[in-house]
Amino acid sequence: MSNISGIAASSGIAIAKVYKLAVPELTFEKTTIDNPEAEIERLNQALEISKNELEVIKENARKSLGDEHAEIFSAHLLVLSDPEMINPIQDKINTEKVNAEAALEDTANMFIDMFKAMDNEYMRERAADIQDVTKRVMAHLLNVTFPDPALIDEEVVIVAEDLTPSDTAQLNKNFVKGFTTNIGGRTSHSAIMARSLEIPAVVGTKSITSDAKKDDLIIVDGIDGDVIINPTEEEITTYKKKQEDFEKQKEIWAQLKDEPTVSADNHHVELVANIGTPDDVAGVINNGGEGVGLYRTEFLYMGKSELPTEDEQFEAYKSVLEQMGDKPVVVRTLDIGGDKELNYLDLPKEMNPFLGFRAIRLCLERDDIFRTQLRALLRASAYGNLKIMFPMIATLDEFRQAKALLLEEKDNLKNDGVDVSDEIEIGIMVEIPSTAVIARQFAKEVDFFSIGTNDLIQYTMAADRMNERVSYLYQPYHPAILNLVNNVIEAAHAEGKWAGMCGEMAGDSIAIPILLGLGLDEFSMSATSILPARTQIKDLSKEELASFKDQLLSMNTADEVEQFIRENTNQ
Amino acid sequence: MSNISGIAASSGIAIAKVYKLAVPELTFEKTTIDNPEAEIERLNQALEISKNELEVIKENARKSLGDEHAEIFSAHLLVLSDPEMINPIQDKINTEKVNAEAALEDTANMFIDMFKAMDNEYMRERAADIQDVTKRVMAHLLNVTFPDPALIDEEVVIVAEDLTPSDTAQLNKNFVKGFTTNIGGRTSHSAIMARSLEIPAVVGTKSITSDAKKDDLIIVDGIDGDVIINPTEEEITTYKKKQEDFEKQKEIWAQLKDEPTVSADNHHVELVANIGTPDDVAGVINNGGEGVGLYRTEFLYMGKSELPTEDEQFEAYKSVLEQMGDKPVVVRTLDIGGDKELNYLDLPKEMNPFLGFRAIRLCLERDDIFRTQLRALLRASAYGNLKIMFPMIATLDEFRQAKALLLEEKDNLKNDGVDVSDEIEIGIMVEIPSTAVIARQFAKEVDFFSIGTNDLIQYTMAADRMNERVSYLYQPYHPAILNLVNNVIEAAHAEGKWAGMCGEMAGDSIAIPILLGLGLDEFSMSATSILPARTQIKDLSKEELASFKDQLLSMNTADEVEQFIRENTNQ
Repeated sequence: MSNISGIAASSGIAIAKVYKLAVPELTFEKTTIDNPEAEIERLNQALEISKNELEVIKENARKSLGDEHAEIFSAHLLVLSDPEMINPIQDKINTEKVNAEAALEDTANMFIDMFKAMDNEYMRERAADIQDVTKRVMAHLLNVTFPDPALIDEEVVIVAEDLTPSDTAQLNKNFVKGFTTNIGGRTSHSAIMARSLEIPAVVGTKSITSDAKKDDLIIVDGIDGDVIINPTEEEITTYKKKQEDFEKQKEIWAQLKDEPTVSADNHHVELVANIGTPDDVAGVINNGGEGVGLYRTEFLYMGKSELPTEDEQFEAYKSVLEQMGDKPVVVRTLDIGGDKELNYLDLPKEMNPFLGFRAIRLCLERDDIFRTQLRALLRASAYGNLKIMFPMIATLDEFRQAKALLLEEKDNLKNDGVDVSDEIEIGIMVEIPSTAVIARQFAKEVDFFSIGTNDLIQYTMAADRMNERVSYLYQPYHPAILNLVNNVIEAAHAEGKWAGMCGEMAGDSIAIPILLGLGLDEFSMSATSILPARTQIKDLSKEELASFKDQLLSMNTADEVEQFIRENTNQ
Repeated sequence: MSNISGIAASSGIAIAKVYKLAVPELTFEKTTIDNPEAEIERLNQALEISKNELEVIKENARKSLGDEHAEIFSAHLLVLSDPEMINPIQDKINTEKVNAEAALEDTANMFIDMFKAMDNEYMRERAADIQDVTKRVMAHLLNVTFPDPALIDEEVVIVAEDLTPSDTAQLNKNFVKGFTTNIGGRTSHSAIMARSLEIPAVVGTKSITSDAKKDDLIIVDGIDGDVIINPTEEEITTYKKKQEDFEKQKEIWAQLKDEPTVSADNHHVELVANIGTPDDVAGVINNGGEGVGLYRTEFLYMGKSELPTEDEQFEAYKSVLEQMGDKPVVVRTLDIGGDKELNYLDLPKEMNPFLGFRAIRLCLERDDIFRTQLRALLRASAYGNLKIMFPMIATLDEFRQAKALLLEEKDNLKNDGVDVSDEIEIGIMVEIPSTAVIARQFAKEVDFFSIGTNDLIQYTMAADRMNERVSYLYQPYHPAILNLVNNVIEAAHAEGKWAGMCGEMAGDSIAIPILLGLGLDEFSMSATSILPARTQIKDLSKEELASFKDQLLSMNTADEVEQFIRENTNQ
């Protein structure tokens, strides 16, 4: 047995055997063959198996993610049935007497190069499809397993370098009991998805893919961030107990599901959830969320070959709003660019993507994309309690421009007789230091603030939160962060506005007492963090915590802050 | 004629013919040759010319930059005389009957691959040497000019995509009258070097390398950021007049050379200079600098094959301190990493280098490198008025650790009987938002602050200052920047410490009145900006500017600030 520690990314205990998720080596030698007919038969079988797999994956994607996500697999299936692609491979085997692997690779590369050279978004996307599909067929020709999270049909713990958004999107909770990765942190994509799917996860272990072998028994402790490979009987017993305790704890939390969030001294705050798709709403309701504090709209734009239409977006937004009833839903407009690329947009490579052309910067330049989203949101506003916020606002000019576009589209829709709510609040993400510093100026013009601590911390500390060499500088309790957060809250209240927070910090048990004391109005977090947070707040005195404010804001280091909170609350 | 506009990077007017600085295409075909002897003769000639050129370059480098910089060219010369490198090329021509180009490339690549594979700093450096030298020899074999700024011997304006630090280091001011580039901004390396060399420059023209042809007559207007290709007679007359006016203006400025810097209402501030090497000190003194506000020590570490020794560093620091007499010299400890790489350190590639493992972060981990620098500084402290500051400080812990190492080395030296000053002030760069926000906490522990606005602005706005797509967000007058700067100055003064600024902002004619009003004590800028700044301050009333403070800090946008300053001062 061996113990590895990583970063606790999603609570809970998973005990199951290892399933390794990695694209296998697909090397082969080009050989001359004697029997072309048999070789073509071998090719056809590989094509057939690949098609069957893709049908299953497509069906799973449709069920879990909806029609639009399933489309990409339709495109893959089309490639495998296209005679213009398949005939040249067969011809090559017949005339050149080469093995199927070589014929497949040569033909695929020819098409890929040709399509790429066409310098046209649609064609480049086809090149990417061919690339993906060729890998799968090649794996079957070489008789190596091509792992596919959607095909898992027994209980496992996934072990991988990292999980892509499309990997996590395909996970079936009935079989995937947990996962653990080499890289990532609490705010990486895979960690956020794990919490949203309520799958225990430990990320950032650095070495788990080399430490764990296929079919090893493995324990993932997403509470404390430990991974145990081939545990002893004693360890299994201990962790089964821990698993039961966790389930019991969850039951206790569940008792507060339909209660409001009230501190010991009767101060009310809102606990709301971060979501990525309409399917996440069920989790919000099950976990007693009082609304949606951050609806990330990027998923609508990802894993696709072109921009989502206005109607597609409208349906998604409407679905979320209707499911939430009269509860607030804060939608963040498109935050693409930086680490989130869209291959059909062909964004330039940047030296420092986190300091680059992304989110509102991109939307104000590409206002065609932005207006489509705004129209879809405005149309959906008739179906619930919509609030809109703009990401990565660094200057008042940017907010004014974005708001002007929104009001322009609202007028257009109204002139066309479309029903649009007149109650939509318009706010901003506070995730750039400049905006936190002059929050007072912004507070006069916005309806609300939502502090995005994931980015705010990395910019304030000048430390890439995905870069392990500087991750020690990602310090949510750094007194500078507390001062900026306090400045935003005070600015909002001075103008009678509300201030929320939608970074991971809002669900952190050390941060919660601090934020309650500073007067934060809305805490938006992973749905699964809501009930533990509500339980915690029930026992806290807002007034007492508020009395610590000046002391906290003038502390020297994050460690001092953490120690003080641990000593003065029950953490 | 055609007019192109770019970014005014260094004042003055240059009128001369175009010299294009670009590595030429070095493509060739591998051919079979009949006469190996003649081919080897051709190779030997190319080797001989290359050696002669390198001797000249080496000599120039020694004169302008000192022995240590000349060393890299000694390494290049060694390669060209090494029989282990040259014999295999000749053998290849003899036995394989291939042309000299092919024999050179194959042999060079073999060595490069071999050395790279050795995974050893020294060997990798040798691979880089071979790569550089091979290009030069190849150019001579192909009879294409290999441009070399050090070989220029007539009056020219250099036109290039960009200039590397080693390009600019080799410029001879007697012949290079100005330069203009496609990329870069006011704070890019080439711009800073241009001001330090007092060569007129316009950068960021986007297209100058395609617009201007070799030997075209060209005017570079570094005052207004214009470039005129093949000007009319009238334009030449106009710009010659502008050139004369600029020279006259410089004479007027020069009258204040030995005067203190005093505002109209008799408030004294210090105008000091940013330097990179001991050779820059002459420019500081000629331009009436009252000290050195930022001595960038990176140049000692660059363009070399290994770390500089303690003695090499000591000599450089001592030279600067002695030249400056009792005037203050603020030395910034090593700020390497990010965009400034050192190939012999083998730093990992990062996704966002500006938010990565650099400066003090690297120095605290590689304390062997850091201690060597600290010892060299401490030994030099006996020769002048030394102040030391640490770059990229984000937490008090980092400052405390860095200071502890400094004091430890001081004790070690004193125990060894070495003379070390007891008057060294220890400060920090304020270039990370977190530090600006909690400046009050820092002010209790540091001796001084130097606000590094180049980085502070890019982090506060979350906009890479080298990325043209977001360069509009690089806003020195953004009210958030002014609030942070004010916070730092107030914090310093509350503890009886001084606050300086060493970013480009300190020499900006709109920023100077603002900073004077906020109470900045020390302004560190390019040496050539000192006399214009002193002239400007002479006519400003500190008290009046201070009365604008609250108004400026509560403004909404950078444009409002700029307009207000233009209306209320003579800008």
